[in-house]
Amino acid sequence: MELYFSPMACSLATRIALYEAGAAARFIEVDSASKRTRDGADYWQINPMGQVPALRTEDGRLLTENAAVLQHVGEAFPAAALLPADAAGRDALRQWLGFIGTELHKAVFVPLLDPHAVAEVKAYASEKAALRLSVLERHLEAHDHLVSAFSVADAYLTAVLNWAPYAGVDLAPWPALTNYHRRMTRRPAISRAIGEEFELYKQEQARRKKAA
Amino acid sequence: MELYFSPMACSLATRIALYEAGAAARFIEVDSASKRTRDGADYWQINPMGQVPALRTEDGRLLTENAAVLQHVGEAFPAAALLPADAAGRDALRQWLGFIGTELHKAVFVPLLDPHAVAEVKAYASEKAALRLSVLERHLEAHDHLVSAFSVADAYLTAVLNWAPYAGVDLAPWPALTNYHRRMTRRPAISRAIGEEFELYKQEQARRKKAA
Repeated sequence: MELYFSPMACSLATRIALYEAGAAARFIEVDSASKRTRDGADYWQINPMGQVPALRTEDGRLLTENAAVLQHVGEAFPAAALLPADAAGRDALRQWLGFIGTELHKAVFVPLLDPHAVAEVKAYASEKAALRLSVLERHLEAHDHLVSAFSVADAYLTAVLNWAPYAGVDLAPWPALTNYHRRMTRRPAISRAIGEEFELYKQEQARRKKAA
Repeated sequence: MELYFSPMACSLATRIALYEAGAAARFIEVDSASKRTRDGADYWQINPMGQVPALRTEDGRLLTENAAVLQHVGEAFPAAALLPADAAGRDALRQWLGFIGTELHKAVFVPLLDPHAVAEVKAYASEKAALRLSVLERHLEAHDHLVSAFSVADAYLTAVLNWAPYAGVDLAPWPALTNYHRRMTRRPAISRAIGEEFELYKQEQARRKKAA
Protein backbone atom coordinates (compact mmCIF):
# COMPACT_ATOMS: atom_id res chain seq x y z
CA MET A 1 0.00 0.00 0.00
CA GLU A 2 0.98 3.60 -0.60
CA LEU A 3 -0.48 6.42 1.47
CA TYR A 4 -0.50 9.98 0.19
CA PHE A 5 -0.44 12.17 3.28
CA SER A 6 0.28 15.68 4.51
CA PRO A 7 1.90 16.09 7.92
CA MET A 8 -0.71 16.30 10.72
CA ALA A 9 -3.61 16.35 8.22
CA CYS A 10 -6.52 13.92 8.56
CA SER A 11 -4.40 11.36 6.70
CA LEU A 12 -2.70 10.88 10.08
CA ALA A 13 -5.64 8.61 10.93
CA THR A 14 -4.64 6.16 8.22
CA ARG A 15 -1.01 6.17 9.34
CA ILE A 16 -2.25 5.39 12.85
CA ALA A 17 -4.36 2.51 11.53
CA LEU A 18 -1.38 1.13 9.59
CA TYR A 19 0.90 1.38 12.65
CA GLU A 20 -1.75 -0.22 14.87
CA ALA A 21 -1.86 -3.08 12.36
CA GLY A 22 1.93 -3.32 12.15
CA ALA A 23 1.50 -2.99 8.39
CA ALA A 24 4.23 -2.05 5.92
CA ALA A 25 3.35 0.87 3.67
CA ARG A 26 5.03 3.55 1.60
CA PHE A 27 4.20 7.08 2.76
CA ILE A 28 4.25 9.79 0.10
CA GLU A 29 4.24 13.34 1.43
CA VAL A 30 2.09 15.94 -0.30
CA ASP A 31 2.51 19.67 0.30
CA SER A 32 -1.06 20.74 0.96
CA ALA A 33 -0.36 24.29 -0.23
CA SER A 34 1.50 23.64 -3.51
CA LYS A 35 -0.28 20.29 -4.16
CA ARG A 36 3.05 18.73 -5.10
CA THR A 37 4.49 15.53 -3.74
CA ARG A 38 7.97 15.76 -2.19
CA ASP A 39 9.43 14.36 -5.43
CA GLY A 40 7.70 17.07 -7.45
CA ALA A 41 4.68 15.25 -8.91
CA ASP A 42 1.50 17.26 -9.49
CA TYR A 43 -0.92 15.87 -6.90
CA TRP A 44 -3.97 17.17 -8.80
CA GLN A 45 -3.10 14.57 -11.45
CA ILE A 46 -3.14 11.85 -8.81
CA ASN A 47 -6.26 12.91 -6.88
CA PRO A 48 -8.52 15.37 -8.76
CA MET A 49 -9.84 16.64 -5.38
CA GLY A 50 -6.29 17.51 -4.28
CA GLN A 51 -6.98 16.08 -0.83
CA VAL A 52 -5.26 13.60 1.41
CA PRO A 53 -5.54 10.80 2.34
CA ALA A 54 -5.40 8.86 -0.88
CA LEU A 55 -4.49 5.21 -0.65
CA ARG A 56 -2.99 3.18 -3.48
CA THR A 57 -4.35 -0.28 -2.76
CA GLU A 58 -2.45 -3.54 -3.19
CA ASP A 59 -4.19 -4.03 -6.55
CA GLY A 60 -3.40 -0.52 -7.77
CA ARG A 61 -6.68 1.35 -7.18
CA LEU A 62 -6.59 4.89 -5.79
CA LEU A 63 -8.99 5.16 -2.88
CA THR A 64 -9.97 8.48 -1.28
CA GLU A 65 -12.25 9.70 1.53
CA ASN A 66 -11.26 8.94 5.11
CA ALA A 67 -14.20 6.66 5.87
CA ALA A 68 -13.43 4.50 2.83
CA VAL A 69 -9.65 4.48 3.29
CA LEU A 70 -9.87 3.62 6.98
CA GLN A 71 -12.34 0.78 6.45
CA HIS A 72 -10.14 -0.57 3.66
CA VAL A 73 -7.12 -0.65 5.96
CA GLY A 74 -9.21 -2.24 8.71
CA GLU A 75 -10.40 -4.98 6.35
CA ALA A 76 -6.92 -5.53 4.91
CA PHE A 77 -5.52 -6.36 8.37
CA PRO A 78 -8.27 -8.25 10.21
CA ALA A 79 -5.87 -9.53 12.88
CA ALA A 80 -5.50 -5.96 14.19
CA ALA A 81 -9.25 -5.84 14.94
CA LEU A 82 -9.56 -2.19 13.92
CA LEU A 83 -13.20 -2.72 12.88
CA PRO A 84 -16.05 -4.23 14.93
CA ALA A 85 -16.82 -7.81 13.97
CA ASP A 86 -20.61 -7.70 14.44
CA ALA A 87 -23.30 -5.98 12.37
CA ALA A 88 -24.42 -3.56 15.12
CA GLY A 89 -20.81 -2.58 15.71
CA ARG A 90 -20.24 -1.98 12.01
CA ASP A 91 -23.33 0.25 11.96
CA ALA A 92 -21.97 2.22 14.91
CA LEU A 93 -18.52 2.49 13.33
CA ARG A 94 -19.96 3.89 10.09
CA GLN A 95 -22.13 6.29 12.08
CA TRP A 96 -19.10 7.66 13.92
CA LEU A 97 -16.98 7.83 10.75
CA GLY A 98 -19.84 9.77 9.16
CA PHE A 99 -20.23 12.05 12.16
CA ILE A 100 -16.52 12.85 12.39
CA GLY A 101 -16.22 13.39 8.64
CA THR A 102 -19.34 15.46 8.03
CA GLU A 103 -20.09 17.21 11.33
CA LEU A 104 -16.70 17.71 12.89
CA HIS A 105 -14.04 17.65 10.17
CA LYS A 106 -15.88 19.38 7.32
CA ALA A 107 -18.47 21.53 9.12
CA VAL A 108 -16.30 22.79 11.99
CA PHE A 109 -12.57 22.28 11.45
CA VAL A 110 -12.04 22.84 7.72
CA PRO A 111 -13.33 26.45 7.79
CA LEU A 112 -11.61 27.17 11.12
CA LEU A 113 -8.25 25.98 9.78
CA ASP A 114 -8.59 27.57 6.35
CA PRO A 115 -6.37 30.68 6.09
CA HIS A 116 -8.58 31.90 3.20
CA ALA A 117 -11.82 31.75 5.21
CA VAL A 118 -13.07 35.17 6.31
CA ALA A 119 -14.27 35.94 9.85
CA GLU A 120 -17.97 35.34 9.04
CA VAL A 121 -17.14 31.86 7.73
CA LYS A 122 -15.12 31.04 10.83
CA ALA A 123 -17.92 32.31 13.06
CA TYR A 124 -20.46 30.12 11.23
CA ALA A 125 -18.24 27.04 11.71
CA SER A 126 -17.44 27.93 15.30
CA GLU A 127 -21.13 28.13 16.24
CA LYS A 128 -21.51 24.50 15.21
CA ALA A 129 -18.79 23.23 17.55
CA ALA A 130 -20.61 23.08 20.90
CA LEU A 131 -23.48 20.79 19.87
CA ARG A 132 -21.09 18.40 18.14
CA LEU A 133 -18.57 18.31 20.98
CA SER A 134 -21.39 17.82 23.50
CA VAL A 135 -22.59 14.74 21.58
CA LEU A 136 -19.06 13.32 21.78
CA GLU A 137 -18.74 14.31 25.44
CA ARG A 138 -21.93 12.48 26.42
CA HIS A 139 -20.81 9.36 24.58
CA LEU A 140 -17.29 9.38 26.04
CA GLU A 141 -18.56 9.93 29.58
CA ALA A 142 -19.94 6.39 29.30
CA HIS A 143 -17.51 4.72 26.87
CA ASP A 144 -13.74 4.37 26.52
CA HIS A 145 -13.91 4.31 22.73
CA LEU A 146 -16.35 5.33 20.02
CA VAL A 147 -17.35 1.70 19.51
CA SER A 148 -16.81 -1.23 21.89
CA ALA A 149 -13.02 -1.29 21.44
CA PHE A 150 -10.34 0.82 19.74
CA SER A 151 -11.19 1.22 16.04
CA VAL A 152 -10.30 3.29 13.00
CA ALA A 153 -12.96 5.79 14.16
CA ASP A 154 -10.79 6.58 17.21
CA ALA A 155 -7.83 7.10 14.89
CA TYR A 156 -9.88 9.59 12.86
CA LEU A 157 -11.27 11.44 15.88
CA THR A 158 -7.79 11.70 17.41
CA ALA A 159 -6.42 13.22 14.18
CA VAL A 160 -9.21 15.81 14.16
CA LEU A 161 -8.94 16.67 17.88
CA ASN A 162 -5.21 17.30 17.42
CA TRP A 163 -6.21 20.42 15.46
CA ALA A 164 -8.24 21.98 18.28
CA PRO A 165 -5.58 24.45 19.52
CA TYR A 166 -4.75 25.53 15.95
CA ALA A 167 -8.45 26.00 15.16
CA GLY A 168 -9.21 27.98 18.30
CA VAL A 169 -11.47 25.21 19.60
CA ASP A 170 -11.21 24.97 23.38
CA LEU A 171 -11.72 21.39 24.57
CA ALA A 172 -11.57 22.33 28.28
CA PRO A 173 -15.38 22.44 28.68
CA TRP A 174 -15.45 18.79 27.56
CA PRO A 175 -13.45 16.82 30.15
CA ALA A 176 -14.40 13.34 28.94
CA LEU A 177 -13.37 14.28 25.42
CA THR A 178 -10.15 15.88 26.67
CA ASN A 179 -9.30 12.77 28.68
CA TYR A 180 -10.14 10.54 25.74
CA HIS A 181 -7.85 12.52 23.46
CA ARG A 182 -5.01 12.39 25.99
CA ARG A 183 -5.54 8.64 26.42
CA MET A 184 -5.53 8.04 22.67
CA THR A 185 -2.32 10.01 22.12
CA ARG A 186 -0.60 7.71 24.65
CA ARG A 187 -1.25 4.59 22.60
CA PRO A 188 2.16 3.58 21.21
CA ALA A 189 1.08 3.57 17.55
CA ILE A 190 -0.58 6.97 17.90
CA SER A 191 2.29 8.50 19.86
CA ARG A 192 4.72 7.31 17.20
CA ALA A 193 2.56 8.53 14.29
CA ILE A 194 2.08 11.98 15.85
CA GLY A 195 5.77 12.27 16.78
CA GLU A 196 6.89 11.49 13.24
CA GLU A 197 4.32 13.67 11.51
CA PHE A 198 4.83 16.63 13.83
CA GLU A 199 8.52 16.54 12.89
CA LEU A 200 7.56 16.51 9.19
CA TYR A 201 5.08 19.32 9.85
CA LYS A 202 7.80 21.51 11.34
CA GLN A 203 10.06 20.78 8.35
CA GLU A 204 7.22 21.67 5.96
CA GLN A 205 6.60 24.96 7.80
CA ALA A 206 10.35 25.78 7.66
CA ARG A 207 10.46 25.05 3.90
CA ARG A 208 7.47 27.30 3.30
CA LYS A 209 8.95 30.08 5.38
CA LYS A 210 12.21 29.83 3.44
CA ALA A 211 10.38 29.88 0.09
CA ALA A 212 8.18 32.85 1.05
CA MET B 1 -37.85 -0.22 10.61
CA GLU B 2 -38.84 3.35 11.34
CA LEU B 3 -37.38 6.24 9.40
CA TYR B 4 -37.38 9.75 10.83
CA PHE B 5 -37.43 12.07 7.84
CA SER B 6 -38.16 15.63 6.76
CA PRO B 7 -39.78 16.19 3.37
CA MET B 8 -37.18 16.52 0.58
CA ALA B 9 -34.28 16.45 3.07
CA CYS B 10 -31.36 14.04 2.64
CA SER B 11 -33.48 11.40 4.39
CA LEU B 12 -35.18 11.08 0.99
CA ALA B 13 -32.23 8.85 0.04
CA THR B 14 -33.24 6.28 2.64
CA ARG B 15 -36.89 6.34 1.53
CA ILE B 16 -35.63 5.71 -2.02
CA ALA B 17 -33.52 2.78 -0.83
CA LEU B 18 -36.49 1.31 1.05
CA TYR B 19 -38.77 1.70 -1.99
CA GLU B 20 -36.12 0.19 -4.27
CA ALA B 21 -36.00 -2.78 -1.90
CA GLY B 22 -39.80 -3.04 -1.69
CA ALA B 23 -39.37 -2.87 2.08
CA ALA B 24 -42.10 -2.04 4.58
CA ALA B 25 -41.20 0.78 6.96
CA ARG B 26 -42.90 3.38 9.12
CA PHE B 27 -42.08 6.96 8.14
CA ILE B 28 -42.13 9.55 10.91
CA GLU B 29 -42.11 13.16 9.74
CA VAL B 30 -39.96 15.68 11.58
CA ASP B 31 -40.39 19.43 11.13
CA SER B 32 -36.81 20.53 10.51
CA ALA B 33 -37.52 24.03 11.85
CA SER B 34 -39.37 23.22 15.10
CA LYS B 35 -37.60 19.85 15.61
CA ARG B 36 -40.94 18.26 16.48
CA THR B 37 -42.37 15.11 14.98
CA ARG B 38 -45.84 15.43 13.45
CA ASP B 39 -47.31 13.87 16.62
CA GLY B 40 -45.56 16.50 18.76
CA ALA B 41 -42.55 14.61 20.15
CA ASP B 42 -39.36 16.60 20.81
CA TYR B 43 -36.95 15.33 18.16
CA TRP B 44 -33.89 16.57 20.11
CA GLN B 45 -34.77 13.85 22.65
CA ILE B 46 -34.73 11.23 19.91
CA ASN B 47 -31.62 12.38 18.02
CA PRO B 48 -29.35 14.77 19.97
CA MET B 49 -28.02 16.17 16.67
CA GLY B 50 -31.57 17.07 15.61
CA GLN B 51 -30.88 15.80 12.10
CA VAL B 52 -32.61 13.42 9.76
CA PRO B 53 -32.33 10.65 8.70
CA ALA B 54 -32.48 8.58 11.84
CA LEU B 55 -33.40 4.95 11.46
CA ARG B 56 -34.90 2.80 14.21
CA THR B 57 -33.54 -0.64 13.32
CA GLU B 58 -35.44 -3.91 13.62
CA ASP B 59 -33.67 -4.54 16.95
CA GLY B 60 -34.45 -1.09 18.32
CA ARG B 61 -31.19 0.80 17.82
CA LEU B 62 -31.28 4.40 16.58
CA LEU B 63 -28.87 4.80 13.68
CA THR B 64 -27.90 8.18 12.23
CA GLU B 65 -25.61 9.53 9.47
CA ASN B 66 -26.61 8.93 5.87
CA ALA B 67 -23.67 6.68 5.01
CA ALA B 68 -24.44 4.39 7.95
CA VAL B 69 -28.22 4.38 7.50
CA LEU B 70 -28.00 3.69 3.77
CA GLN B 71 -25.52 0.83 4.17
CA HIS B 72 -27.72 -0.64 6.91
CA VAL B 73 -30.76 -0.63 4.60
CA GLY B 74 -28.66 -2.10 1.79
CA GLU B 75 -27.47 -4.94 4.01
CA ALA B 76 -30.96 -5.55 5.44
CA PHE B 77 -32.35 -6.22 1.96
CA PRO B 78 -29.61 -8.02 0.03
CA ALA B 79 -32.01 -9.20 -2.70
CA ALA B 80 -32.38 -5.58 -3.85
CA ALA B 81 -28.63 -5.41 -4.59
CA LEU B 82 -28.31 -1.82 -3.42
CA LEU B 83 -24.67 -2.40 -2.41
CA PRO B 84 -21.83 -3.82 -4.52
CA ALA B 85 -21.05 -7.44 -3.71
CA ASP B 86 -17.26 -7.30 -4.18
CA ALA B 87 -14.58 -5.66 -2.04
CA ALA B 88 -13.45 -3.14 -4.68
CA GLY B 89 -17.07 -2.14 -5.23
CA ARG B 90 -17.63 -1.69 -1.50
CA ASP B 91 -14.53 0.54 -1.35
CA ALA B 92 -15.89 2.63 -4.22
CA LEU B 93 -19.34 2.83 -2.62
CA ARG B 94 -17.90 4.08 0.66
CA GLN B 95 -15.74 6.57 -1.21
CA TRP B 96 -18.78 8.02 -3.00
CA LEU B 97 -20.89 8.06 0.18
CA GLY B 98 -18.03 9.92 1.86
CA PHE B 99 -17.63 12.33 -1.04
CA ILE B 100 -21.36 13.14 -1.25
CA GLY B 101 -21.64 13.54 2.53
CA THR B 102 -18.52 15.57 3.23
CA GLU B 103 -17.79 17.46 0.01
CA LEU B 104 -21.18 18.01 -1.54
CA HIS B 105 -23.82 17.85 1.18
CA LYS B 106 -21.97 19.46 4.11
CA ALA B 107 -19.39 21.67 2.40
CA VAL B 108 -21.58 23.06 -0.41
CA PHE B 109 -25.30 22.52 0.11
CA VAL B 110 -25.83 22.92 3.87
CA PRO B 111 -24.55 26.52 3.94
CA LEU B 112 -26.26 27.41 0.64
CA LEU B 113 -29.63 26.14 1.92
CA ASP B 114 -29.28 27.57 5.43
CA PRO B 115 -31.50 30.66 5.82
CA HIS B 116 -29.30 31.77 8.75
CA ALA B 117 -26.05 31.70 6.74
CA VAL B 118 -24.80 35.18 5.79
CA ALA B 119 -23.61 36.10 2.29
CA GLU B 120 -19.91 35.47 3.07
CA VAL B 121 -20.74 31.94 4.23
CA LYS B 122 -22.76 31.24 1.11
CA ALA B 123 -19.96 32.62 -1.09
CA TYR B 124 -17.43 30.36 0.66
CA ALA B 125 -19.63 27.31 0.05
CA SER B 126 -20.43 28.34 -3.50
CA GLU B 127 -16.74 28.58 -4.43
CA LYS B 128 -16.36 24.91 -3.56
CA ALA B 129 -19.08 23.74 -5.95
CA ALA B 130 -17.27 23.74 -9.31
CA LEU B 131 -14.40 21.40 -8.37
CA ARG B 132 -16.78 18.94 -6.74
CA LEU B 133 -19.30 18.97 -9.59
CA SER B 134 -16.47 18.58 -12.13
CA VAL B 135 -15.28 15.43 -10.34
CA LEU B 136 -18.81 14.01 -10.60
CA GLU B 137 -19.13 15.16 -14.22
CA ARG B 138 -15.94 13.39 -15.28
CA HIS B 139 -17.06 10.18 -13.57
CA LEU B 140 -20.59 10.26 -15.02
CA GLU B 141 -19.31 10.97 -18.54
CA ALA B 142 -17.95 7.43 -18.43
CA HIS B 143 -20.37 5.65 -16.07
CA ASP B 144 -24.14 5.28 -15.74
CA HIS B 145 -23.97 5.06 -11.94
CA LEU B 146 -21.51 5.96 -9.18
CA VAL B 147 -20.51 2.31 -8.83
CA SER B 148 -21.07 -0.50 -11.33
CA ALA B 149 -24.87 -0.59 -10.89
CA PHE B 150 -27.53 1.43 -9.09
CA SER B 151 -26.69 1.68 -5.39
CA VAL B 152 -27.57 3.62 -2.25
CA ALA B 153 -24.91 6.17 -3.31
CA ASP B 154 -27.08 7.08 -6.32
CA ALA B 155 -30.04 7.50 -3.98
CA TYR B 156 -27.99 9.91 -1.84
CA LEU B 157 -26.61 11.88 -4.79
CA THR B 158 -30.09 12.20 -6.30
CA ALA B 159 -31.46 13.58 -3.02
CA VAL B 160 -28.66 16.18 -2.89
CA LEU B 161 -28.93 17.19 -6.56
CA ASN B 162 -32.67 17.80 -6.07
CA TRP B 163 -31.67 20.84 -3.99
CA ALA B 164 -29.63 22.52 -6.73
CA PRO B 165 -32.29 25.03 -7.89
CA TYR B 166 -33.12 25.96 -4.26
CA ALA B 167 -29.42 26.40 -3.45
CA GLY B 168 -28.66 28.50 -6.52
CA VAL B 169 -26.40 25.79 -7.93
CA ASP B 170 -26.67 25.72 -11.71
CA LEU B 171 -26.15 22.19 -13.05
CA ALA B 172 -26.32 23.29 -16.71
CA PRO B 173 -22.48 23.42 -17.11
CA TRP B 174 -22.42 19.72 -16.15
CA PRO B 175 -24.43 17.88 -18.82
CA ALA B 176 -23.47 14.33 -17.77
CA LEU B 177 -24.50 15.13 -14.21
CA THR B 178 -27.73 16.79 -15.38
CA ASN B 179 -28.58 13.74 -17.53
CA TYR B 180 -27.74 11.39 -14.68
CA HIS B 181 -30.04 13.29 -12.31
CA ARG B 182 -32.87 13.25 -14.85
CA ARG B 183 -32.34 9.54 -15.44
CA MET B 184 -32.34 8.78 -11.71
CA THR B 185 -35.57 10.72 -11.08
CA ARG B 186 -37.28 8.53 -13.71
CA ARG B 187 -36.63 5.32 -11.80
CA PRO B 188 -40.04 4.24 -10.46
CA ALA B 189 -38.93 4.09 -6.79
CA ILE B 190 -37.30 7.52 -7.00
CA SER B 191 -40.16 9.12 -8.90
CA ARG B 192 -42.61 7.79 -6.28
CA ALA B 193 -40.44 8.92 -3.33
CA ILE B 194 -39.95 12.43 -4.73
CA GLY B 195 -43.64 12.75 -5.67
CA GLU B 196 -44.77 11.82 -2.16
CA GLU B 197 -42.21 13.93 -0.33
CA PHE B 198 -42.71 16.98 -2.52
CA GLU B 199 -46.40 16.84 -1.60
CA LEU B 200 -45.45 16.65 2.11
CA TYR B 201 -42.97 19.49 1.57
CA LYS B 202 -45.69 21.75 0.17
CA GLN B 203 -47.94 20.88 3.13
CA GLU B 204 -45.10 21.68 5.55
CA GLN B 205 -44.50 25.04 3.87
CA ALA B 206 -48.24 25.82 4.04
CA ARG B 207 -48.37 24.95 7.77
CA ARG B 208 -45.36 27.18 8.45
CA LYS B 209 -46.88 30.06 6.49
CA LYS B 210 -50.14 29.70 8.43
CA ALA B 211 -48.27 29.61 11.76
CA ALA B 212 -46.09 32.64 10.94
